[in-house]
Amino acid sequence: MRPDAPERGFPEAEFAARTAKAQARMAKQGLAGLLLMTEPDVRYFSGFQTLFWQSPTRPWFLFVPASGKPVAVIPEIGGVLMRRSWLDDVRTWSAPRPEDDGISLLTDLLAPLAKAGGTIGVMKGHETALRMPLGDWERLITNLPGLHIADATRLVQGLRMVKSPAEIEKLRHICAIGSASFARVPEIIAEGMPLEEVFRTFRREALAQGADDAPYVVGAAEPGGYADVISPPSRRPLQSGDVVMLDTGCVWDGYYCDFDRNWAIGRADDMARRAHDTLWRATEAGLAAAKPGNTCRDLFRAMSAVIAEMDKSGGDIGRLGHGLGTQLTEQPSHAAFDETVLEEGMALTLEPSLGYGSGLMMVHEENIVVRSGGAELLSTRAPQELPLIGA
Amino acid sequence: MRPDAPERGFPEAEFAARTAKAQARMAKQGLAGLLLMTEPDVRYFSGFQTLFWQSPTRPWFLFVPASGKPVAVIPEIGGVLMRRSWLDDVRTWSAPRPEDDGISLLTDLLAPLAKAGGTIGVMKGHETALRMPLGDWERLITNLPGLHIADATRLVQGLRMVKSPAEIEKLRHICAIGSASFARVPEIIAEGMPLEEVFRTFRREALAQGADDAPYVVGAAEPGGYADVISPPSRRPLQSGDVVMLDTGCVWDGYYCDFDRNWAIGRADDMARRAHDTLWRATEAGLAAAKPGNTCRDLFRAMSAVIAEMDKSGGDIGRLGHGLGTQLTEQPSHAAFDETVLEEGMALTLEPSLGYGSGLMMVHEENIVVRSGGAELLSTRAPQELPLIGA
Repeated sequence: MRPDAPERGFPEAEFAARTAKAQARMAKQGLAGLLLMTEPDVRYFSGFQTLFWQSPTRPWFLFVPASGKPVAVIPEIGGVLMRRSWLDDVRTWSAPRPEDDGISLLTDLLAPLAKAGGTIGVMKGHETALRMPLGDWERLITNLPGLHIADATRLVQGLRMVKSPAEIEKLRHICAIGSASFARVPEIIAEGMPLEEVFRTFRREALAQGADDAPYVVGAAEPGGYADVISPPSRRPLQSGDVVMLDTGCVWDGYYCDFDRNWAIGRADDMARRAHDTLWRATEAGLAAAKPGNTCRDLFRAMSAVIAEMDKSGGDIGRLGHGLGTQLTEQPSHAAFDETVLEEGMALTLEPSLGYGSGLMMVHEENIVVRSGGAELLSTRAPQELPLIGA
Repeated sequence: MRPDAPERGFPEAEFAARTAKAQARMAKQGLAGLLLMTEPDVRYFSGFQTLFWQSPTRPWFLFVPASGKPVAVIPEIGGVLMRRSWLDDVRTWSAPRPEDDGISLLTDLLAPLAKAGGTIGVMKGHETALRMPLGDWERLITNLPGLHIADATRLVQGLRMVKSPAEIEKLRHICAIGSASFARVPEIIAEGMPLEEVFRTFRREALAQGADDAPYVVGAAEPGGYADVISPPSRRPLQSGDVVMLDTGCVWDGYYCDFDRNWAIGRADDMARRAHDTLWRATEAGLAAAKPGNTCRDLFRAMSAVIAEMDKSGGDIGRLGHGLGTQLTEQPSHAAFDETVLEEGMALTLEPSLGYGSGLMMVHEENIVVRSGGAELLSTRAPQELPLIGA
């Protein structure tokens, strides 16, 4: 454990504040409640944190009423842990129970709202999923004639985008762990090491540096550059002239860092060095543009203008960064379609990428928080020049 | 990397066989196709493997037609990797594109079936989720009047439950890694180590033993027993008299082990030793009952009969084991409600648990594959007696 680790969890006031903000927005939109069912949404309002969500067997529900504390409707196996949260009303059933996995409990909870012809919000927009069986959702709606369903995606994502000081401390901590792990890479990997071992070695290093886990470790290593950034590692040993990229989402107390680094093994060719320099300068442009009042589109355009010096193809990553928090990627998106206005407290990645040579690409990423005066780096800034390993 | 590691991936014949089996079942049910969208389902028919699913931003789709190879409809960032699979037809779009994240491409693909009044299967039953925005799903259905939707949960889960020899080799490998990691625990943890460090140390050990990752590490340590098995670790140091439990889902080439082990620090009281012995014998009863022709309910009853010697409360875990494969937990469930008939090649956990003392519980778990002659252990069998650390 690093000596500078913040406290785990949050004081009750954090959840009360989040709930109050949600309820103010719900009142404006005429919502009698929010029905939430994904890990980050349930955790946001309850503090309920467990790896048990990795099992797809059981659905979990949190209902945020128009006033008062949220109500949990969850499998009994989570009862002990949820009852330690700030919630007072925790309703459980013995799950799995395929013929009635929480549906009767939800129906009882929502029936008064349905009778009154009320509207509840659910997450049904961009970047959401329905984390319960679709058949059960259809049954629930059928059970509740009169209940109206509205899309609460913007309401909840809008709240979650802006981080509290306590959240930013957690993000700062995991970004420091990520930076310390990347700083060790030139000592722990070398020419001849298979890429699969590079990934494993990096994961062990991130844990040694204090990460709770390093669930996302991807990357690539190929001569002069790489063509793909989401594949599993090969067993091919690192060779002189390879460009190696590692991208990681490490997690601490449920908060993620998400950034990457590039190195060249032994020597770097001119194109790779130029790509790295271009992406570094694109990131500088992003840092300068990351001010309250600018939009995500402004960030996208600022970085794109630099990328265009070298990339003529329009690399098809679809965006140049995103929100950072309790998921590997969060809203908003630095893309031409996203007009989200930057606010103080937003935690973001800046992630310019470009294509070069014949089918090669390079990616580059930093993590920041938007402050009144502009961007504050959470990750330790990468060097402008592509660093060499074992030169 | 362990010298005994199998090959990664599968030959094309594996995917062709899975697809042919699905198509035979589809024909019986009158399905013109299957529309799949979760990581394990897409991977099952395509071999497409990436950690990028951890980002919730983009939906991914695989369509299994009534005949011929599956068709991928995916974000362009996955195009390079998917085109290396056995598929011939890979359709991509520049994602994220919130106003049309694959919906036009899916509409084009499915329109002929809708026009013919056909039926496609989607996963909408127990243990499923809709991994796309609910709003997009509703738009897609509205786009395709005439298309009928059937529940394909049993069809796909039924196929996935029975593992091929190549899948069993991967499961055997990751279970060996898990067993080797647990065997090292008495050497790498000790009285005085905070539980948070115990978890981190175990994760590093699993990676050193050859796991690609150890995404699921939970457990507990309290005097004489524990009350909860899904909480994050505390910073409380291990003390003499604690019962420590570690439960892990480690992964290799996309296949999971899922089992746990208990130890006592320094000394064990009689109740804890009796609980361990009871669970060990319950597992023996499960091993004896895990024969082709028996049902999951038979497994549940065989283990329950032994557990009842000590547990008078009816511990509310809801089931005593489950399927094992490409998710931390899979179908079927060893529960009173599950009448799935065991078949040769099913990979399963046996996971008896019991309550004792005042609010304490103990869990115990092994991993097996069902063979014609009965259960074959994939995990190295736990000792009957609760083992001591540092005695």
